[in-house]
Amino acid sequence: MTFIDMLRAAEARNRSMLCVGLDPEPSRFPGALQGDPCKIYDFCAAIVDATADLAIAFKPQIAYFAAHRAEDQLEKLMAHMRANAPQVPVILDAKRGDIGATAEQYAREAFERYDADAVTLSPFMGWDSVQPYLKYEGKGAFLLCRTSNPGGDDLQNQRLVDLPGQPRLYEHVAALAQGPWNLNGQLGLVVGATYPEEIARVRQLAPSLPLLIPGVGAQGGDAVATVKAGRTKDGLIAVNSSRAILYASSSADYAQAARREAMKTRDLLQAARG
Amino acid sequence: MTFIDMLRAAEARNRSMLCVGLDPEPSRFPGALQGDPCKIYDFCAAIVDATADLAIAFKPQIAYFAAHRAEDQLEKLMAHMRANAPQVPVILDAKRGDIGATAEQYAREAFERYDADAVTLSPFMGWDSVQPYLKYEGKGAFLLCRTSNPGGDDLQNQRLVDLPGQPRLYEHVAALAQGPWNLNGQLGLVVGATYPEEIARVRQLAPSLPLLIPGVGAQGGDAVATVKAGRTKDGLIAVNSSRAILYASSSADYAQAARREAMKTRDLLQAARG
Repeated sequence: MTFIDMLRAAEARNRSMLCVGLDPEPSRFPGALQGDPCKIYDFCAAIVDATADLAIAFKPQIAYFAAHRAEDQLEKLMAHMRANAPQVPVILDAKRGDIGATAEQYAREAFERYDADAVTLSPFMGWDSVQPYLKYEGKGAFLLCRTSNPGGDDLQNQRLVDLPGQPRLYEHVAALAQGPWNLNGQLGLVVGATYPEEIARVRQLAPSLPLLIPGVGAQGGDAVATVKAGRTKDGLIAVNSSRAILYASSSADYAQAARREAMKTRDLLQAARG
Repeated sequence: MTFIDMLRAAEARNRSMLCVGLDPEPSRFPGALQGDPCKIYDFCAAIVDATADLAIAFKPQIAYFAAHRAEDQLEKLMAHMRANAPQVPVILDAKRGDIGATAEQYAREAFERYDADAVTLSPFMGWDSVQPYLKYEGKGAFLLCRTSNPGGDDLQNQRLVDLPGQPRLYEHVAALAQGPWNLNGQLGLVVGATYPEEIARVRQLAPSLPLLIPGVGAQGGDAVATVKAGRTKDGLIAVNSSRAILYASSSADYAQAARREAMKTRDLLQAARG
């Protein structure tokens, strides 16, 4: 089953476009777990168990594990998700970007060591920084396209003079990902939720690619406008929420609170499909 | 002592512009180490000891450790370099690129967990993906600017219509890094060695930034042209060679062979200063 098939099946089964982001910060852990980096696995596994029937995907962010020397806990979490939520694909958010032999090592890290279903990548180094990941049949790769942080404009929003129509850099990335780079249907795009008109523009340029859309929830993007701009008959979206779900409660009921918050966001997104 | 001070001191002390890249591939290890990922530390430490008086910097590439679950060996190697080659700064080649809270986690990984002196970063997400690293006083950050892989042209070489002079994307990155982004003199740039005229152009736009220049050695860049284009009175360069040094011999004499190869490249670079 390819990554895209998994996404499609999880969307149908869980009636969800919600991606649950796993950005564990021990300082924000509830109750007895508070401040303890050895509890990263426990915390995340409880969130996974509480939301496995509500998510189109899970998205662990590797930096939160690496900063705490917790690669072993990430391995354990990946195995837990595989065993307990096999129907929900896992996107390893790593935003790697390197070429040739080095990219092969990163691909090995993501797809062999952690057995992720997809990974996030930076396109800055071009095609040969993407291609090594596509050798893993059925695995997915989401390219950074348009991010909604203030600095997202610095490069991504620049217009390119030598290409037809003078597209912005992010539009160029979207067109490459839909077209010449997408050899086997493994690519997707990361597009921030802050500006729905940009999601609509990316969707126009990349009608069949899945979009990973961070920025709903704690980051304030508009869930309804996001769905209307991004979800089409052929185009899947996975709308990420991390902190609003993970830290919905700072007490022992955090997993139940996460479930309630996830359900609320999931239902809001579904309702927007109309 | 800041990262830049360390670079300057190492250049003077070792009369070297050579950066020794540590990209350990167990399948290429010599003799008894061959194929054994548990020997990554041993292999790299021997290379460090053999070249510590010949290098302006060491550059471990984190993917080669992560692919083999060898973060513990990277920690040990970082401590080894700190203890046995304290005069040589260490650039952790990680090419991270993320924003806000996530970038803070990556910065913590690089500067606290591994105690690197500098890190490589992707500028694709803009200023707020760089800024969190600069909170670590005296530490350095090299931004990807112009890479010499075939796909380097896909984005970096595009001309930007709305900026004065219609610079190419990599020229824009160089100007940002020399100017508004360089609050405390902590930034440098990564520029491939394949096209010396592009190194010269980056040097023109960023006269005082240190340049990390991969692509000499196994990748075929011209060492002499690289030095002439990049090293100026105010502008340091660290010219990286990895595989040509690491795998100079496939026998038990690999460390001595690495030393000979490093000395040859170091001397070639020095001679080009004229």
